[in-house]
Amino acid sequence: MSATAAAIERELHTDIPLSLAMGVRVSEASLERVRLSAPLAANLNPHATVFGGSAVALAILASWTLLRLRERAVGSTAALLIQRSSMQYEHPITSAFEALCELRDEEAYERFRRTLERHGRARITLGALIAQDGARRASFEGDFVGLRS
Amino acid sequence: MSATAAAIERELHTDIPLSLAMGVRVSEASLERVRLSAPLAANLNPHATVFGGSAVALAILASWTLLRLRERAVGSTAALLIQRSSMQYEHPITSAFEALCELRDEEAYERFRRTLERHGRARITLGALIAQDGARRASFEGDFVGLRS
Repeated sequence: MSATAAAIERELHTDIPLSLAMGVRVSEASLERVRLSAPLAANLNPHATVFGGSAVALAILASWTLLRLRERAVGSTAALLIQRSSMQYEHPITSAFEALCELRDEEAYERFRRTLERHGRARITLGALIAQDGARRASFEGDFVGLRS
Repeated sequence: MSATAAAIERELHTDIPLSLAMGVRVSEASLERVRLSAPLAANLNPHATVFGGSAVALAILASWTLLRLRERAVGSTAALLIQRSSMQYEHPITSAFEALCELRDEEAYERFRRTLERHGRARITLGALIAQDGARRASFEGDFVGLRS
């Protein structure tokens, strides 16, 4: 784990206590890609697979972390709030799992940035995947709103 | 809290450990209506409001609990798994919050029951609301799959 990832992990655990309860670890954190992991034990459902609420929470955390890193990189302290989330659960997850958010649409982020600068408020859609051992288990999409502080 | 609600709360905390970490309490639990609550502290985001992942997790728990109570009432031990979730976050939540799931479409449940009995697999859509002090803050919809065990 890089020094950045370690610092972001500590911050996540402090800022969002549920991430600590879920056992969230930051595996990668860059402006292009955030990868978080969580163990099975803290996130179990009664069928010995991952609770759907934990999976969607990990996807939200990965997407929000990527957006926060982007905003910080340009000196923005905008509040970043989720406005809509949707999740498709494709297969049960039977072990530790990961959420991966990649920013693939640079233009969408640039529009978000410009609108936030100009109007103090902007919206962006981010996608994330949930995987177990590298295989996709669920897919997430979320709309986030930035509010200039 | 009724004896039933207390028993369901204990079971929820055991079956889904994240519900204990979130501080989930069962306020009402009947075949028509499940109401769960959670405190702010365990579910904070960095803006001192409720983390979006906690809100959607509480809505999933309320819906799943209602469906489980229904299934138990007819002697079914089917596994109940979430297949799709969507959540609209309408207003930030600044204190303890609730998720309310009501079964309004009895016919949809009867169809779910019959299909599950006949084919060993069925799907049902449930809705839930997230509220703070009785005012709506988010709305949830989820598709659940029942699998005969």
